[in-house]
Amino acid sequence: MDLHEEMIQTGTQALQASRELIMLGTRKKNSILQAMADGLESQKENIKTANKLDMDEAKNNGLAPAMLDRLLLTDGRIDSMIRGLRAVADLKDPVGSKISRWIRPNGLEIIKQRVPIGVIGIIYESRPNVTADTAALCFKTSNAVILRGGKEAIHSNAAIAEALIAGGLKKGLPEKAIQLIKTTDREAVKELVQLEGLVDLAIPRGGEALIRAVTEQARIPVIKHYKGLCHTYIDAKANLQMALDITVNAKCQRPGVCNALETLLVHKEIANEFLPQLATAMEKYNVELRGDEAARAIVPAMKEAVESDWAEEYLELILSVKVVDSGQDAIDHINKYGSRHSDAIITESTAAKKQFTQEVDSSTVYINASTRFTDGSEFGMGAEIGISTDKLHARGPMGLEELTTYKYIISGTGQVRE
Amino acid sequence: MDLHEEMIQTGTQALQASRELIMLGTRKKNSILQAMADGLESQKENIKTANKLDMDEAKNNGLAPAMLDRLLLTDGRIDSMIRGLRAVADLKDPVGSKISRWIRPNGLEIIKQRVPIGVIGIIYESRPNVTADTAALCFKTSNAVILRGGKEAIHSNAAIAEALIAGGLKKGLPEKAIQLIKTTDREAVKELVQLEGLVDLAIPRGGEALIRAVTEQARIPVIKHYKGLCHTYIDAKANLQMALDITVNAKCQRPGVCNALETLLVHKEIANEFLPQLATAMEKYNVELRGDEAARAIVPAMKEAVESDWAEEYLELILSVKVVDSGQDAIDHINKYGSRHSDAIITESTAAKKQFTQEVDSSTVYINASTRFTDGSEFGMGAEIGISTDKLHARGPMGLEELTTYKYIISGTGQVRE
Repeated sequence: MDLHEEMIQTGTQALQASRELIMLGTRKKNSILQAMADGLESQKENIKTANKLDMDEAKNNGLAPAMLDRLLLTDGRIDSMIRGLRAVADLKDPVGSKISRWIRPNGLEIIKQRVPIGVIGIIYESRPNVTADTAALCFKTSNAVILRGGKEAIHSNAAIAEALIAGGLKKGLPEKAIQLIKTTDREAVKELVQLEGLVDLAIPRGGEALIRAVTEQARIPVIKHYKGLCHTYIDAKANLQMALDITVNAKCQRPGVCNALETLLVHKEIANEFLPQLATAMEKYNVELRGDEAARAIVPAMKEAVESDWAEEYLELILSVKVVDSGQDAIDHINKYGSRHSDAIITESTAAKKQFTQEVDSSTVYINASTRFTDGSEFGMGAEIGISTDKLHARGPMGLEELTTYKYIISGTGQVRE
Repeated sequence: MDLHEEMIQTGTQALQASRELIMLGTRKKNSILQAMADGLESQKENIKTANKLDMDEAKNNGLAPAMLDRLLLTDGRIDSMIRGLRAVADLKDPVGSKISRWIRPNGLEIIKQRVPIGVIGIIYESRPNVTADTAALCFKTSNAVILRGGKEAIHSNAAIAEALIAGGLKKGLPEKAIQLIKTTDREAVKELVQLEGLVDLAIPRGGEALIRAVTEQARIPVIKHYKGLCHTYIDAKANLQMALDITVNAKCQRPGVCNALETLLVHKEIANEFLPQLATAMEKYNVELRGDEAARAIVPAMKEAVESDWAEEYLELILSVKVVDSGQDAIDHINKYGSRHSDAIITESTAAKKQFTQEVDSSTVYINASTRFTDGSEFGMGAEIGISTDKLHARGPMGLEELTTYKYIISGTGQVRE
């Protein structure tokens, strides 16, 4: 069997499993999720052994320390996966709930009901915990899942998937509800995202190259979890102490994540007062500031920001700073360079709030708060499968509801069309 | 300027227009829609002259009579477009409405608000009224639209678009909110659906070849309006008179549309009683029946159905008929051959209803009613831009709400992440 045939088989099995998943009730699914957690628990040593294989190979290949750290599975990290599975079991099941219901004048009753999407392909890199996390979320929403992890984590991912499946089978997990692609051939991704009629959705989670490849090759719908080039705009009417606290938090609390601040926009009227305070505060956190000409005229110690700085997601302790003439200028800058992820305004002005939230074209727009809150659990979703930077189907943090679609169920008493 | 550059310019202008559209209130938009209708009214003669050019060319090219009829614009059809525009003005505007709102324990207020998608590309064939209908729906929802009609209707489409735009501009339509691609070069479609970052969504409306081409070439999200291979299943517990009335309606009332019935599945327990009645009724409407072996054993006058019959959207007075052993067989047949559009069960059995509506994987599932009701206005949506056979973002009839997405607007008082 060649790769093409193998992937068609994988997709066909997933589709079949998705039909079986539709028939499982919430209680049954939750007991399977607990059994999947038990499976991980009992396979801890196997998982660590598999992870050691990946780690040794990664060290031999000279992987960067940050990447090695992402790959590493400790007891603590496996325990956290197990807790994650049990937490998903405790979440409310959206499948089967009524979104709306109405009666037409001819007596037809229309119910718009939440149903699973069907078969979901997840394409991801490095962190092996994604295997357990996404399998749990897809299963909870009665979707079959095809997992395609990174080459560097193949042994860890396989051990985790095997543990989950072995555990789940004991309580009635449909056999092919969770499948992991074992080949590391890059062509498998292309085959996966072209399985029209078998796979309903692809969610790529990873770097720009991965997402670009998926988007170019896909013939099925894709929801992208792209970069987060987040802005905060300090308006002329801002509370400057609040502005400073929020800026420090958004930039420094965890700089390596997608909802961290990358570019600060400062209204010219308060730049003289605010920027020196900013420079002092940022020095404490060893943040490198890169300013435009106007910002450097006020704080000459700043490095010079070049055009490419406005388009860069640093993911480290670097902040680009630009002085703007107006709220409109800030909005235009964000819509030009931003990634439609999360952007904030700090202001006490009602008009400025309204204009900013209406015109900034991002999934999440903040007034007087840190962009760091763009996150499924901070939103109260309980868990997230990613943060969509697309506009279709799901935007922003994607929880369980976003892993469902709907169908219309129409009940009549013999109605025909006139 | 080559085609590639031209399309990037079109997309960039649309994106700019979409920013302007966000700022228009409902009342303003409605007055522009009325002005667009006035524009059509005043350009009636021009439109008919342009349509004559298309008709003459189509006749010279030997277009089939059915296609010629779809292309033809009469006074009545233009009046119907005008009424359509005014009706869209009267519909409720979904933009800006709150989908939900909640407060987090840290005091952050999260509002999930409906917003326009941004820029929508519509790719369609023949019927020139689509130009006016889709332009109106996209504009009402504050989306910029790029229209790409069929070559055969190019003069009609251009005249309609010009009339709409000229009318709308008088009341403040953003100049590039509605653009029609004037080149008939097929490459333009490919360029359009690859305008990542400029165009947010492509909606192809037309035949299988068009939809396949768009899906293969697209790098932007696509919502397909595919074929409708609709089934009705007559259960063992059906009211047979109701079953007969619904079958006749679903097949004969308008056979050329996507929600018409194509395949009838009949439970073996009632086949002996039902099929002769069906044959008598269908004869009156000149419907050709194509049955499987079991059906033909009961009604020998039926033609023989071959494998390809189960996969064919006839769109004419032909009905394929299959006798099934159980509800499960009917469901399996529908999930295998259907197009995920609309399928019905006729039964008085609660268990059969439940199983059918849960397991049939279609956008709209009917109990004791004709599939012909899958339609935006029959659903009470007021208008529709198409019927999605996809599962992501929108499923089934797409009205105004389905032309919107959402953003999260989060208001704080200085909240930072711990």
